[in-house]
Amino acid sequence: MLVFAQFGAGRIGAIHAANLAASGGARLAHVVDVHEAAAASLAARHGAESSDALTALRDPAVGAVIIASSTDTHADLVIAAAKAGKAIFCEKPIDLSLARVDQAIAAVQAAGVPMLVGFNRRFDPSFAELHRRIRTGAIGVVEQVVITSRDPGLPPVEYLRVSGGQFRDMTIHDFDMARWMLGEEPVEVFAYGAALVDPAVAAVGDTDSCMVLLRTASGRMAHINNSRRASYGYDQRVEVHGSLGRLMAGNRVPTTVEQADAQSDSREKPLHFFLERYADAYRLELAAFIEAVTHGTPVPVGAQDGRQALMLAEAALRSLRDNRPVKVSEVA
Amino acid sequence: MLVFAQFGAGRIGAIHAANLAASGGARLAHVVDVHEAAAASLAARHGAESSDALTALRDPAVGAVIIASSTDTHADLVIAAAKAGKAIFCEKPIDLSLARVDQAIAAVQAAGVPMLVGFNRRFDPSFAELHRRIRTGAIGVVEQVVITSRDPGLPPVEYLRVSGGQFRDMTIHDFDMARWMLGEEPVEVFAYGAALVDPAVAAVGDTDSCMVLLRTASGRMAHINNSRRASYGYDQRVEVHGSLGRLMAGNRVPTTVEQADAQSDSREKPLHFFLERYADAYRLELAAFIEAVTHGTPVPVGAQDGRQALMLAEAALRSLRDNRPVKVSEVA
Amino acid sequence: MLVFAQFGAGRIGAIHAANLAASGGARLAHVVDVHEAAAASLAARHGAESSDALTALRDPAVGAVIIASSTDTHADLVIAAAKAGKAIFCEKPIDLSLARVDQAIAAVQAAGVPMLVGFNRRFDPSFAELHRRIRTGAIGVVEQVVITSRDPGLPPVEYLRVSGGQFRDMTIHDFDMARWMLGEEPVEVFAYGAALVDPAVAAVGDTDSCMVLLRTASGRMAHINNSRRASYGYDQRVEVHGSLGRLMAGNRVPTTVEQADAQSDSREKPLHFFLERYADAYRLELAAFIEAVTHGTPVPVGAQDGRQALMLAEAALRSLRDNRPVKVSEVA
Amino acid sequence: MLVFAQFGAGRIGAIHAANLAASGGARLAHVVDVHEAAAASLAARHGAESSDALTALRDPAVGAVIIASSTDTHADLVIAAAKAGKAIFCEKPIDLSLARVDQAIAAVQAAGVPMLVGFNRRFDPSFAELHRRIRTGAIGVVEQVVITSRDPGLPPVEYLRVSGGQFRDMTIHDFDMARWMLGEEPVEVFAYGAALVDPAVAAVGDTDSCMVLLRTASGRMAHINNSRRASYGYDQRVEVHGSLGRLMAGNRVPTTVEQADAQSDSREKPLHFFLERYADAYRLELAAFIEAVTHGTPVPVGAQDGRQALMLAEAALRSLRDNRPVKVSEVA
Repeated sequence: MLVFAQFGAGRIGAIHAANLAASGGARLAHVVDVHEAAAASLAARHGAESSDALTALRDPAVGAVIIASSTDTHADLVIAAAKAGKAIFCEKPIDLSLARVDQAIAAVQAAGVPMLVGFNRRFDPSFAELHRRIRTGAIGVVEQVVITSRDPGLPPVEYLRVSGGQFRDMTIHDFDMARWMLGEEPVEVFAYGAALVDPAVAAVGDTDSCMVLLRTASGRMAHINNSRRASYGYDQRVEVHGSLGRLMAGNRVPTTVEQADAQSDSREKPLHFFLERYADAYRLELAAFIEAVTHGTPVPVGAQDGRQALMLAEAALRSLRDNRPVKVSEVA
Repeated sequence: MLVFAQFGAGRIGAIHAANLAASGGARLAHVVDVHEAAAASLAARHGAESSDALTALRDPAVGAVIIASSTDTHADLVIAAAKAGKAIFCEKPIDLSLARVDQAIAAVQAAGVPMLVGFNRRFDPSFAELHRRIRTGAIGVVEQVVITSRDPGLPPVEYLRVSGGQFRDMTIHDFDMARWMLGEEPVEVFAYGAALVDPAVAAVGDTDSCMVLLRTASGRMAHINNSRRASYGYDQRVEVHGSLGRLMAGNRVPTTVEQADAQSDSREKPLHFFLERYADAYRLELAAFIEAVTHGTPVPVGAQDGRQALMLAEAALRSLRDNRPVKVSEVA
Repeated sequence: MLVFAQFGAGRIGAIHAANLAASGGARLAHVVDVHEAAAASLAARHGAESSDALTALRDPAVGAVIIASSTDTHADLVIAAAKAGKAIFCEKPIDLSLARVDQAIAAVQAAGVPMLVGFNRRFDPSFAELHRRIRTGAIGVVEQVVITSRDPGLPPVEYLRVSGGQFRDMTIHDFDMARWMLGEEPVEVFAYGAALVDPAVAAVGDTDSCMVLLRTASGRMAHINNSRRASYGYDQRVEVHGSLGRLMAGNRVPTTVEQADAQSDSREKPLHFFLERYADAYRLELAAFIEAVTHGTPVPVGAQDGRQALMLAEAALRSLRDNRPVKVSEVA
Repeated sequence: MLVFAQFGAGRIGAIHAANLAASGGARLAHVVDVHEAAAASLAARHGAESSDALTALRDPAVGAVIIASSTDTHADLVIAAAKAGKAIFCEKPIDLSLARVDQAIAAVQAAGVPMLVGFNRRFDPSFAELHRRIRTGAIGVVEQVVITSRDPGLPPVEYLRVSGGQFRDMTIHDFDMARWMLGEEPVEVFAYGAALVDPAVAAVGDTDSCMVLLRTASGRMAHINNSRRASYGYDQRVEVHGSLGRLMAGNRVPTTVEQADAQSDSREKPLHFFLERYADAYRLELAAFIEAVTHGTPVPVGAQDGRQALMLAEAALRSLRDNRPVKVSEVA
């Protein structure tokens, strides 16, 4: 029975806590949040205690932590948890600064604890099955990857101000997906970006729409298109072209109902947003972490994966700023 | 907190017990099964006790029972649970004999306890959404219903021997679906049936393939086609034609992956069988029961629904035997 | 160069004449129609002459006739063309009376001329491909066939008065399709029918909605559902279940455009009606006739196919009248 | 009756000649080809004469020419036809050199004759309907365009040697599509390209796989991905994201047949290549040209469209060579 302390009792924290409760072989002991009421409420729901960070990390019963607090606290918590010898499940990104990420990774390596970075999409059953087929050679050698990733609606501008920008906050998931599907590390990035949805986004120095190209050393290519607003719902698709064929994984719909009438022939729109679309992925991600920690096997998405995706975001930012392709090695 | 006793610790019993554990507001206290080891194992997994029927029904803490034991025990357990004043969740069918069904219903009515009959497909999100749209008038007045319902593979002949026959064991789900979608009671049934899959089925006096027509008083029509063997998986589709349009609910697939290569362009086959396809339905069905019992509101699929579907099965059997359309009133 | 005389210059006649013009190896010489202006106009468009029947049939250059005039003239024209030694392409049905059909067939056999009956759907690329796969064993032994065939809107009641009724006018296409897909002759028919769309249909003694079951000697089954009104367009689908799998051929759409917005995710509705849906089929049907006549090979859909489908319609009518399954041998 | 002379009797010439024959209101009088046998054969099939260029252009009955000969002859023929006062239907590209294109356009403008450049995909019913919906505001303001365009197989290396390279030969269609869908002129291009399919392609200095980004002045973006080899067939899709929604136009399939069996659930692969996929487009393109010339209305895709797409190809080539985004104005 793996005992957890969880940092963060917000929306994503509530999901992890519920998945923990439903999983076999694990138990939530502590919930820590600066909003004590939120911590207390979530703790009560799952038979845990509302604690402070120190208490939680000092509890010898605790074998693992979930870090689902605000991004700026991740690195400190990773370092503290590593020093306390706990296995770490950390929401992405580890930090918005590569230097801080490196400090966190160094602490994890020094402590020799396992750490999973929350690129939940790798656990989406459709993307995972697509990737499994690539590995089995179903489409031969991968040549091109096309990733469509569009959010249903613009978040509040206050959020954008602290998000680290579209590349580090949103595209980072797609950078990870591109790396995973390409099967070879991108060495160069080129990016276009603009505030097409709302000028308020430009006013805070960010973009809400972008198109990115990536290139690997052997010439494989990937394209990512993002928008912060897709009126029809959360648009999450991956398409991979190989020497022997094409694999696609599309959106998921709430039901299979189709309605044809004098006006139209329509099916359901995609599941609304990440909580709905990736509900299975969050569950399977935590299960994989528990499984790996319990059996001492490697965690499936490690700290280096978090670092690598952030480097691609940095390169994309520089590419957008300078309007030129940027070598990943420039920002390493 | 609604406390349950459950009869039956087999495959379907395990599903109900797990859904109970995951639901809020309910708790499993007793598991009863003639296979004591199975009862003990399931009880242990969910913090319940392995009990005998008498103990379970006499426990004043118990407010509700789940009857998921073999069909021949359903009626007796319904009657006993009703006399004990427990709310009843009973797997379909209540019994294979209309007379026994009537005894069970009489006991339930005398006791004034709520009873849900497990037509789980009504809780399938796709079929439920289709039905919701009918009710909202999306396709006007219902005129024709087409139900496709095909199992992946033939069960063992020993099972067929005690199953009550294809109409009472398999088609009964579709009879319920037809009634629900038609929105008007069928008054007549015509059925063709044959053992096309395996002559061993004919040897036990049963069919493995059938096509049925139903007619309501106002002239609405429904068609059901069944087979005990669909090599590509569990084929479960409903199509409803109304004065203003058509609604269809199709199969669900494990993932959205599509693969195109020199040989073919293929998507995933349907989810394998009822445990996979109706996993959500089982969960939502039990939640609806708990909700209704807890709040004293009507249960969504009652004993009369169980009786009515069985009558259609009886009429179909007589139609097949006599090769003529049979009025439902003949078998009432 | 096969020279044609064509009877009938209406809507369907115009299609055949245009397909003739576009085909290689054939030429239209005469157009005959009681509406002389229509005949003259169509003839002019294709470099033919507007003639009377006698002239057309006496022209020794004419090797083949297309009979696309009103149904009540078909049998007489078939007999006259047969006597004149012309190859015959006759729109369905040959006649509404089996006795007249038999006279026409006798004349054709006596003359030894080829005759194709216009079951155009056999030439629809999708249905033809589906049938081709059945023949190659793709789904093993055929067990069940489900045919959905729904017209976009009710024709004028005046038409219904002379149409011969829904079974002989509309379902007859599906009876032919069922025979073709079953690969074995149906021996019994059961039919439900009603005027659900418009009471005016009942007033002329007809139905606008029906559901039919057919059974072959070895126990294969087919279902047909028809409606005279499908608000979303012409719904033409065939589904065949065999021992090894399932084949389906669905509707065709004008374009592949899909639109997703805040309201819905919709694709195009099916092609509007038979002229649009079966445009390819009409072209391929005539090409197959020209090919067969030119090379002296058998025509693909013969007079007996026309007779057999009509018998199924007769059986269905009697089944509806008497509310009982009717052996096809009763109406032979 | 518009009378045509056609240059080129190869594969694409045969298609234009057949479409001309089937169209109303036009007639083919001359076929010119350096392969005289090919010219004679095609001319005979359509009641035309095999002529030399001078004869054809001097024939006062000729009102229009179709230029479907090899690319290196296009510009000369355009200039000669313009001087002869003929309306011009010219296969793309006008020439591989912008300077030669400008000479051709100057001649056309001086003569005041209409000229259509054969970007046939604009006449594909699906892409045309998609574009029509953009114009009607169905998805609001266009923001991003994604074009997938992949050929079934590598052409012979000899062809690649004279093709002008992937951007000028293949991507040029997609550059035109991007311009058309964006509704605003691209001002900058960035391109990745590689020979991933066959090293022989690199040996002739070309690419067989590429990914391109385009940007307009207002910040709209487009992505194109190309491959010379898609084992599953000709992959031609367009996806447009606007402020109010998404439009997609996908591949077309030969039939709607779907087959489900123990191995897979598969539909037909896309139509094989451009002759099949764009058969309708070629027909509609020529009809639009005849219509415009006959009625003196503007031709739908003019010489400037040909020039503009070629400029984007030039910019892409320079981008690939220099590995930097290239302003279109650099190559104007």
